[in-house]
Amino acid sequence: MQTPQKIAVVGSGLVGTLLAIYLKKAGHTVHVYDRSPDIRNVAFSGRSINLVMSDRGWRTLQEIGLDDEIKKIGIPVDKRAIHMLDKELSYQYYGKDGEAIFSLSRGVLNRKMVDLAEAAGVEFFFNKKVWDVTLATATLHEGDTERGEWEELDYDMVFGADGAFSRVRHRMQRQSMFNYSQDFIRVGYKELHIPANEDGTHKIDKNSLHIWPRGEFMLMGLANPDGTFTCTLFMPHEGENSFENLKDKETLVAFFAKHFPDTKDVIPDLVEDFFKNPTSYLVTMKCYPWTYADKVALIGDAAHAIVPFYGHGMNAGFEDITILSQLMEKHGDDWTAIFKEYQESRKPNADAIAELSYRNFMEMSSKTADAKFHLQKKIEKWFSDKHPDKWVPLYSRVTFSHQPYSEALAEGDKQNRIMEEILNMESIEQIWETEVIEQRILELLKK
Amino acid sequence: MQTPQKIAVVGSGLVGTLLAIYLKKAGHTVHVYDRSPDIRNVAFSGRSINLVMSDRGWRTLQEIGLDDEIKKIGIPVDKRAIHMLDKELSYQYYGKDGEAIFSLSRGVLNRKMVDLAEAAGVEFFFNKKVWDVTLATATLHEGDTERGEWEELDYDMVFGADGAFSRVRHRMQRQSMFNYSQDFIRVGYKELHIPANEDGTHKIDKNSLHIWPRGEFMLMGLANPDGTFTCTLFMPHEGENSFENLKDKETLVAFFAKHFPDTKDVIPDLVEDFFKNPTSYLVTMKCYPWTYADKVALIGDAAHAIVPFYGHGMNAGFEDITILSQLMEKHGDDWTAIFKEYQESRKPNADAIAELSYRNFMEMSSKTADAKFHLQKKIEKWFSDKHPDKWVPLYSRVTFSHQPYSEALAEGDKQNRIMEEILNMESIEQIWETEVIEQRILELLKK
Repeated sequence: MQTPQKIAVVGSGLVGTLLAIYLKKAGHTVHVYDRSPDIRNVAFSGRSINLVMSDRGWRTLQEIGLDDEIKKIGIPVDKRAIHMLDKELSYQYYGKDGEAIFSLSRGVLNRKMVDLAEAAGVEFFFNKKVWDVTLATATLHEGDTERGEWEELDYDMVFGADGAFSRVRHRMQRQSMFNYSQDFIRVGYKELHIPANEDGTHKIDKNSLHIWPRGEFMLMGLANPDGTFTCTLFMPHEGENSFENLKDKETLVAFFAKHFPDTKDVIPDLVEDFFKNPTSYLVTMKCYPWTYADKVALIGDAAHAIVPFYGHGMNAGFEDITILSQLMEKHGDDWTAIFKEYQESRKPNADAIAELSYRNFMEMSSKTADAKFHLQKKIEKWFSDKHPDKWVPLYSRVTFSHQPYSEALAEGDKQNRIMEEILNMESIEQIWETEVIEQRILELLKK
Repeated sequence: MQTPQKIAVVGSGLVGTLLAIYLKKAGHTVHVYDRSPDIRNVAFSGRSINLVMSDRGWRTLQEIGLDDEIKKIGIPVDKRAIHMLDKELSYQYYGKDGEAIFSLSRGVLNRKMVDLAEAAGVEFFFNKKVWDVTLATATLHEGDTERGEWEELDYDMVFGADGAFSRVRHRMQRQSMFNYSQDFIRVGYKELHIPANEDGTHKIDKNSLHIWPRGEFMLMGLANPDGTFTCTLFMPHEGENSFENLKDKETLVAFFAKHFPDTKDVIPDLVEDFFKNPTSYLVTMKCYPWTYADKVALIGDAAHAIVPFYGHGMNAGFEDITILSQLMEKHGDDWTAIFKEYQESRKPNADAIAELSYRNFMEMSSKTADAKFHLQKKIEKWFSDKHPDKWVPLYSRVTFSHQPYSEALAEGDKQNRIMEEILNMESIEQIWETEVIEQRILELLKK
């Protein structure tokens, strides 16, 4: 058991709130600050993408007995449903029978988490804007405006769980030897929605992640328990098919009629949603170090913001908490050792999921529409069923295991090199289900 | 001629001051702000590395007739003098006969530039700290402290020439779609010095850049007109041979006696300098975009801070000014077009010199001590003398030409691939000066 500390968590998002519960259960006094109002009292923003919880996230919830509560507000999703323009709907299963990720509304989940944290004894301070942190003393500087009066709030320790644009990190960034990068991608996104049927059922299959892959851009839909879908249009900010070019109602309607004709009946509020909801940006943010002495640590998006195409932003953040919690067990009151091992072990994994997430936009928007890619997935599944010990597909390792992301990435790269060679074999379309191929893959795996 | 504007330049360093002269000569009202006192009234910092001015820098000075003034305070340097541990001093000439870079003391040069700018009619505001900029209106926010009262200063246009830790960029960084990275390298540096002889002459050859290459670390020395040398010890912050491990007088003296025995007589104030002067950090900083509408532009280190191993930080910054000036001629009052073309044309070149500078630490600290590398340089020189149109060495293209850095880098990479093949030929040490090699290089160049 650790000596109780007075700990501030900046940010009441998913990671900040769950971290607070962990710290509280470990015996500490925990105050959570957020610049925004209590999410339980406000409307959602219209700029969120539905979350998918997978094994890493579930583990973190399970360890403190919160998984059942959360499963109730989620919907299992075991496959992609691919909406092509001139083809029938097709499906790609994510894993083996029964393996599924869970679709969750960010707002609904966040509200639930704050409830659970309060029940656990965490204190929340909403509408409190933390502008700066004195790192050496773990002092927060809080006030209404950046240039106005600030109050000083002293803690033993501060966690920055304040997201991609973290103010805590902002202070660390002004230290020497602090590496930092922010890279915006040319693709942005906008939230749209599919309402429920009148009887409260879903208009399309609720257990699929629906994708309309169109190369440079794509539409995605994930179900909510109330019968609705949260949809996301991913598209370049500028260029031929871009947000910039969808300026008026006529252009927008024509664009959707051309590229997403089967959404006409299910997205009735297209025009209203599109012009009401903001166009949001996507950024990959990396930094190092993540901690300052035994006083301050970054966690979740504040330490490693990634693009959403693997559905792992929350899962990676929750896994930070799992690792941190294990290190609290291991090192007891030696927070210097806890923070050191935390950042050293998590950094390569955060970099790996950043890379995987970035690459996955290409997979979702282009490759899911590609026959070769479908064949690759079929061969991988066939081989993996025969040799489950020798071939776990990359997606499964990332999503349905706790293998460190960095190892999953390295093995995935190896598998891709093998599959590239296999796909280049003559008449592969005809011969893929043969012993020749099986032996060739086994051979290549030994290299 | 452009319509006169009221322009603020933030930063009175070399690039800010020279830019101010250019803008003033183009007919604008120019105010330069600096958070520090007038460099003409204060002692130098003890943390500077001597500058080397090469063709790019000279061009920028020459175009407004300042080159002769500056040449007077510099010392031509036409070669590296390599101090090995157990070998005689050897030399590597930089270019063809007469080609030289110029060693300049940053402080002396900066003072001279401020004098020249004042004489040209530029107004300076020292001890004025700019904390923030309103980008849309080109308004500076200036005050004594970050949290105190600020004054608003309105301009038509603002240039951020405020270095690697630019406050102007800091504001731009908080915009969406602003890409940014800062990467500290593990090597830091410390200023040391060689005093003049009693008669004012130099203790070692003044027309050489002196290097003591020792692999992970190196010492460097560049002459000043007053008979002294400014020396720089580059070394990792942590590890076996590191600043961290040179904690006391005894260790330091023993370290220098072991690794730099021939400096014993020429660096008499080693201990005093070492513990008085700070250990400084080295960072590569990249960002994009560099401009905001027709209101704000970054220039020099504020847009592209690089490590000092190619001696091109100032040269690259001055070249920014040359290009900007050409675009002011081309586009007249269309500052939107000027800024757009400025950032689009300079960005790839800034990235290229960042890469070249980073690589050059390896060349200076390790390769200059390597026999193969010396042979490569000899072969390149021999071939280049025979075919001056077909082979300009990378260093010459970067230093003695105005070829865009990005092209120089690409051609340098091609030359390296060729030389790698040549150096791998059997008995190359014996046969390098033969027609076989000449023909082989010609062949490889055609590929």
